[in-house]
Amino acid sequence: MANNKIGIQTIKLTNPPSIIAANAIVGPKEGKGPLAKNFDIVLEDDLYGEASWEKAESKMAIETVKSAVLKAKVYLEDIDYFVAGDLLNQLMASSFAARELQIPYFGLFGACSTMTEALSLAAMMVDGGYADYVVAATSSHFSAAERQFRFPLELGNQRPLTAQWTVTGAGAAVLTKNSGGPNITHITTGKVIDYGITDAYNMGAAMAPAAVDTIKAHLRDTGFTSESYDLIITGDLGIIGMDIAKEMLVKEGINVKNNFSDCGVEIFNHFEQDTHAGGSGCGCSAVVFCGYLYRLLKEKKIRKLLLVSTGALLSPTSLHQGESIPSIAHAVTIESNL
Amino acid sequence: MANNKIGIQTIKLTNPPSIIAANAIVGPKEGKGPLAKNFDIVLEDDLYGEASWEKAESKMAIETVKSAVLKAKVYLEDIDYFVAGDLLNQLMASSFAARELQIPYFGLFGACSTMTEALSLAAMMVDGGYADYVVAATSSHFSAAERQFRFPLELGNQRPLTAQWTVTGAGAAVLTKNSGGPNITHITTGKVIDYGITDAYNMGAAMAPAAVDTIKAHLRDTGFTSESYDLIITGDLGIIGMDIAKEMLVKEGINVKNNFSDCGVEIFNHFEQDTHAGGSGCGCSAVVFCGYLYRLLKEKKIRKLLLVSTGALLSPTSLHQGESIPSIAHAVTIESNL
Repeated sequence: MANNKIGIQTIKLTNPPSIIAANAIVGPKEGKGPLAKNFDIVLEDDLYGEASWEKAESKMAIETVKSAVLKAKVYLEDIDYFVAGDLLNQLMASSFAARELQIPYFGLFGACSTMTEALSLAAMMVDGGYADYVVAATSSHFSAAERQFRFPLELGNQRPLTAQWTVTGAGAAVLTKNSGGPNITHITTGKVIDYGITDAYNMGAAMAPAAVDTIKAHLRDTGFTSESYDLIITGDLGIIGMDIAKEMLVKEGINVKNNFSDCGVEIFNHFEQDTHAGGSGCGCSAVVFCGYLYRLLKEKKIRKLLLVSTGALLSPTSLHQGESIPSIAHAVTIESNL
Repeated sequence: MANNKIGIQTIKLTNPPSIIAANAIVGPKEGKGPLAKNFDIVLEDDLYGEASWEKAESKMAIETVKSAVLKAKVYLEDIDYFVAGDLLNQLMASSFAARELQIPYFGLFGACSTMTEALSLAAMMVDGGYADYVVAATSSHFSAAERQFRFPLELGNQRPLTAQWTVTGAGAAVLTKNSGGPNITHITTGKVIDYGITDAYNMGAAMAPAAVDTIKAHLRDTGFTSESYDLIITGDLGIIGMDIAKEMLVKEGINVKNNFSDCGVEIFNHFEQDTHAGGSGCGCSAVVFCGYLYRLLKEKKIRKLLLVSTGALLSPTSLHQGESIPSIAHAVTIESNL
């Protein structure tokens, strides 16, 4: 069996890469939420000086990468790979960011699971000796996502209470060989899970079974218990999806009473901010991790974290063709020090 | 410096993974082209028994993976990672294939460069000891791509002679640890290059500079000359793009007179089949490699191949917003035996 494989879906890294820097930029609404003080930049205007929301998202991706690389005390030229993705068709935000950054680029699409997909691949590249430095980054933008996936904002459509609010934000993390915590130690890669949900306004319910499947696989493969973790946090299940996931985990005998949360739940004051079921989007787990959780790991307020970004792999076309919503979740163990 | 790095953009694999099986399915038009006899399945109908072209593409992806895995004499359950992508928004073909295949899944988007992006990451996963078996796969479908990127086919729009024809096809390759050739030995990862082309009906011209940039980087990093290769073949520059690339390479003093071609040029009889400037799409280099070139490597008619899949990272939205076409190319060295 391959050296680093410790189970059907899980690898253990031989030389766990360090995340030496992280950076998060968010939009105005996220800057009024409970995590506001953790973000490096809060935009005053979600156009960020650009002519379109899509270009604003790309600029967020560019600027968050540049800042993360600066914090890592290296140059853009030192970065071997830019591993990134977003929600826009053809990864418009990441691809145009890669044009500006001029770093060898692997584009990823895992919908809102992309942050842990990027961290997984980046960690393998560093651990395996293929790279000295890798940047993992993702972004999303509420206004760009709404008009691509749902309706033009100008229509003023009413959103059901199960709907989630796409986070405007971009996060980037710089990985290199072990030089102190936080370190990525284990990676569990998800399968596509589909329980038949067809309501694109209830993606938390669609994604919850995928999160549960990956968490179960992770615990099975590693021998860890849920209590091994200070925090298990999903990407963007939101309030409804998180409740479903917790209930499913408890039924499986997995205790997540006191150490389970969701980035989409944490990022907004849902009732005051009218964000209904919670935050979502590639940027959601990206900025909550790169802005907030990374600091808690650095300060050793969290010693062992399971970050489980969750993605709904639907497209407007697949929905129109009567398909249900396939979902996926990738889990990454991050420890504050080894 | 990281163990496997041998230059700014290039890695050399310590234990070059074997491609132990490959499989290609194509549409009816590709089945009338000069490479027809190399493909495992030629569809009689590009709907492949499905209700939509998108679902037909996903079915091609599923069936080509199943066949490749069967040829590799393993089971789907033995495959550690399914690393795949396509041109459809949100990777509809690959994501729904991953739902059916139930293999841990990393979705990729590199436009038509995705086949070598997938081979690059798959090779690192095997070489690094993260996987025993990885499937790299991509697909595209002419009719699905046309209606997503250009116009509904029912309009009967005239296509300019610089336009390319998206290949209907899906290719899959199974990688494992070295157990005989063909082996992936070197990987050069592309940067995004953009010379300012804005004509989506001339993507060969947009992508040619990216191919040249990656080939130059590859030769610089490895110390190989173009003559080291029996064949250097780009993904889908087509007739116009290939001519531009050759001219640019010759100007750089790189001799590609006798050993340079393009998958998009090889796959159709352009004048008879009315495919204008040549084939394109994620499926183009996928089926030409998995169907045709893989056999030549197995039979040692090619001993050393540089496969350079090329991608135009435009989106309809980026074009509408006045952007030019960012392009990328990833190169993979494949040797028939070590």
